[in-house]
Amino acid sequence: MTAVEKLEKHVKELSNINYTKSVLFWDGETGAPKSGVNERGEALGYLNSLYKRKMSDEEFISLFSRLSEDKTIDLVPKRMAEELDDEYKKIKNIPEEEYVDYIKLINNAHMVWEEAKDKEDFDAFAPTLKEIIAYQKKFIDYRESELSPYNVLLDDYEPGMTMDKLDEFFSALKETIVPLLKEIIDSDVVVDDMFLKRDIPIEKQKKIVNNLVEMINFDLGKGMIKGSAHPFTLGLSPLDVRFTNRYQEDSLDFALFAGAHEGGHAIYEQNIDQNLIGTNLADGASMGMHESQSRFYENLICKDIHFVRYYYKKLKEKYLDELKDIDVYTFYKGINKVTPGLIRIYADELTYSLHVMIRYEIEKEIFENDLAVGMIPKLWEEKMQSYLGVVPSNDAEGPLQDVHWSGGMFGYFPSYALGSAYASQIMHFMRKELPVNELLETGDIKQVGAWLREKIHKYGKVKKPSELINDISGEGFNPIYYANYLKDKYSAIYEI
Amino acid sequence: MTAVEKLEKHVKELSNINYTKSVLFWDGETGAPKSGVNERGEALGYLNSLYKRKMSDEEFISLFSRLSEDKTIDLVPKRMAEELDDEYKKIKNIPEEEYVDYIKLINNAHMVWEEAKDKEDFDAFAPTLKEIIAYQKKFIDYRESELSPYNVLLDDYEPGMTMDKLDEFFSALKETIVPLLKEIIDSDVVVDDMFLKRDIPIEKQKKIVNNLVEMINFDLGKGMIKGSAHPFTLGLSPLDVRFTNRYQEDSLDFALFAGAHEGGHAIYEQNIDQNLIGTNLADGASMGMHESQSRFYENLICKDIHFVRYYYKKLKEKYLDELKDIDVYTFYKGINKVTPGLIRIYADELTYSLHVMIRYEIEKEIFENDLAVGMIPKLWEEKMQSYLGVVPSNDAEGPLQDVHWSGGMFGYFPSYALGSAYASQIMHFMRKELPVNELLETGDIKQVGAWLREKIHKYGKVKKPSELINDISGEGFNPIYYANYLKDKYSAIYEI
Repeated sequence: MTAVEKLEKHVKELSNINYTKSVLFWDGETGAPKSGVNERGEALGYLNSLYKRKMSDEEFISLFSRLSEDKTIDLVPKRMAEELDDEYKKIKNIPEEEYVDYIKLINNAHMVWEEAKDKEDFDAFAPTLKEIIAYQKKFIDYRESELSPYNVLLDDYEPGMTMDKLDEFFSALKETIVPLLKEIIDSDVVVDDMFLKRDIPIEKQKKIVNNLVEMINFDLGKGMIKGSAHPFTLGLSPLDVRFTNRYQEDSLDFALFAGAHEGGHAIYEQNIDQNLIGTNLADGASMGMHESQSRFYENLICKDIHFVRYYYKKLKEKYLDELKDIDVYTFYKGINKVTPGLIRIYADELTYSLHVMIRYEIEKEIFENDLAVGMIPKLWEEKMQSYLGVVPSNDAEGPLQDVHWSGGMFGYFPSYALGSAYASQIMHFMRKELPVNELLETGDIKQVGAWLREKIHKYGKVKKPSELINDISGEGFNPIYYANYLKDKYSAIYEI
Repeated sequence: MTAVEKLEKHVKELSNINYTKSVLFWDGETGAPKSGVNERGEALGYLNSLYKRKMSDEEFISLFSRLSEDKTIDLVPKRMAEELDDEYKKIKNIPEEEYVDYIKLINNAHMVWEEAKDKEDFDAFAPTLKEIIAYQKKFIDYRESELSPYNVLLDDYEPGMTMDKLDEFFSALKETIVPLLKEIIDSDVVVDDMFLKRDIPIEKQKKIVNNLVEMINFDLGKGMIKGSAHPFTLGLSPLDVRFTNRYQEDSLDFALFAGAHEGGHAIYEQNIDQNLIGTNLADGASMGMHESQSRFYENLICKDIHFVRYYYKKLKEKYLDELKDIDVYTFYKGINKVTPGLIRIYADELTYSLHVMIRYEIEKEIFENDLAVGMIPKLWEEKMQSYLGVVPSNDAEGPLQDVHWSGGMFGYFPSYALGSAYASQIMHFMRKELPVNELLETGDIKQVGAWLREKIHKYGKVKKPSELINDISGEGFNPIYYANYLKDKYSAIYEI
């Protein structure tokens, strides 16, 4: 066996372990009885130990370390080795015992966070959060990186991303969105969205969502959709991509656009080159790039006036008697209504990035300037007031609303906003090659999907996000396209 | 660590592997897209290799071999070791390469069988079947057992079962059922069952089945029910027991009694002592004993006149407008109608065992008298004519109808009939302790379930089937109870 064949064999094992973990996770989130949670935990623990054993195998480690530097081998195995090497470097210096303690802490933290959120009491979560941050800081130290602490974390979720770039990005957003939002609030235009809360039977909503995601070319024959408390996408392989959605009788808009969002993630996964199956590259290029595709389909396709004109008519004819008095422009404005609110996951497209920015700024303070955990709620309130003009009445509406910190996921939030910005930059350059408006107007999404597949999806993790963006646009990440897009779209809706 | 603790640790690993395989299987059978079949196969192959590696671990083998003979340890670890030792002895002398070739053959055989069945052509399956039988015979030889070849196979599925016992069992059945069946066919009593084919919406059927299995105390909070092509039960642990059912608008009776049947399997699994979780004993005592519980709930409970009187009224009031002109005795007779047919899985309670007997007699000829595979269809036809009075018009209605032989499962079929016979023997002795008719008449199934739990379910595999039957009845397996039960029940229905 050649070195590359050996690498492939080892990676195939990791891939089988990950596949299996994913199926167990899917099973647990989509209807499995609660009483079985311990046995699932045991089995997942066992699978994690298998994964860890593999990643501690000296022969395997020396193999991928060597191949990650080898300039004579093909790109795919080289990238496979590089990814493994990156993964390994993150944990190799962490003492075993410390890592085990951290995992225990994280396992417990979820429950602590949930209880604190229920009690709306940040102080009940603060000691745990403090511990998590202390571990994260130690782990960053162990990596002996040349990067600044928070840049280390940012780079984990978005290779190449730094505070410099994000500061520039967020200040461009702040300059655009904050004054625009003030004008919108002062505007005389009244956007009605009450009709989106009309009761629509759940079985009908499911059909509508299936219909919409098929229109944007999610292949239901190579995937499935189920219900769960929090929508998510799971790509077992490009040939089996699943997502979940949440349906409530009075929330068609949630189901529709969460469906389009997860549908975007799922389309990305379905279009990854099938030759990458069984490798560690059959995944999105980065969190930000993955999010760019979900936001692309959710906002730039399914909330775009041209495509709305196409699909709203069809859905109304086929299913939506309940909205027969609502014309297409009323529908379009309703689904794009701007309402500054407290909760990130319910935010509209315009204000969403401001929520992310607040988390970014606070995380930066924590890792760069040792912000005390106890200061977070006050800082949160100030920033909400300043950017969005609303303040939480309790901690559950404030810093306790998101699960991420309880899982030690610092540096993750910016990918959400980056995703939107990547999406606008991609769309700007797609428009140079495709008559996007006409395609959307006629529902001819195939060409859009084919373009994305060729430029982004098929590569999986073979190309890094910065390469993808550069190859598409001939420049690096540039927030201007997103700022312009928001300004144009919302000025029109609110007649500013 | 003590030797027993070591054993438990190893077994926990096997248990985690089996849990994980089961979840993957469940996922594959309940809605996963077909296109993902290869990756699931890869992952299952990997999990099988982990299992095999564990079962080839010299230290582990010597541990369980030793403990299986150790009279000083507790019953549970001793039984754990015995089960492992039995499992190991079955394969230890098979040359690795031969076993791998056999597994390949079996993996391929399923497709060959399916195609042959589609073409209704036994000859297309015969060469593969011949190969499977040749391997099975070789494998039996490797085991150097003192038992006769077919007894070796019987013992695998039903420890302690032999041709002597089964010959006695089946001749008692033959003597009872064959003449009874002739009388039924000649009888003037006309049983109507057309009303069972009335269209009933599938969503309603699901509610009805859920209601029925809850009445017999399947705990939906510790399990779930889904749709699949072939109903089956999967116990991940006593805390997570799932089964599937098949729903068609014009087949309420299928859904109802397949539900009761799988519900019986599932109730057994739910009532296994939770202290056995994570061991290799958290399973039914044998195939026959498992089948006894499914048949018990399907036939002796849900097709019993007393319980029918209780639940039919409730189901009719709550859901079944479609049957409002059908009184309870008409319903009872309809669900118990006897119709000799060609297909085992659609057979009524009375003729079912005759189908099993045919398979038993043919398997015996194959393994004891070297029956040529090419002779099977003719023998099949003769036996069908003689026992049931009907003959298949093609091979798909004959020896190609069952999947078992393509999977190398020889010796399995008798457990189906044994299950019914165990169920009658168990019921006979339950009636000495519980006023069963009154309990069924008032829907008070809890006491029935508690009795079964205490006498059978809770033990899992700790007690062998023969011990369970002996402890319940003070005698060994005795087919007389089943023969009497059939005679009494069907003489009454057909006024013989």
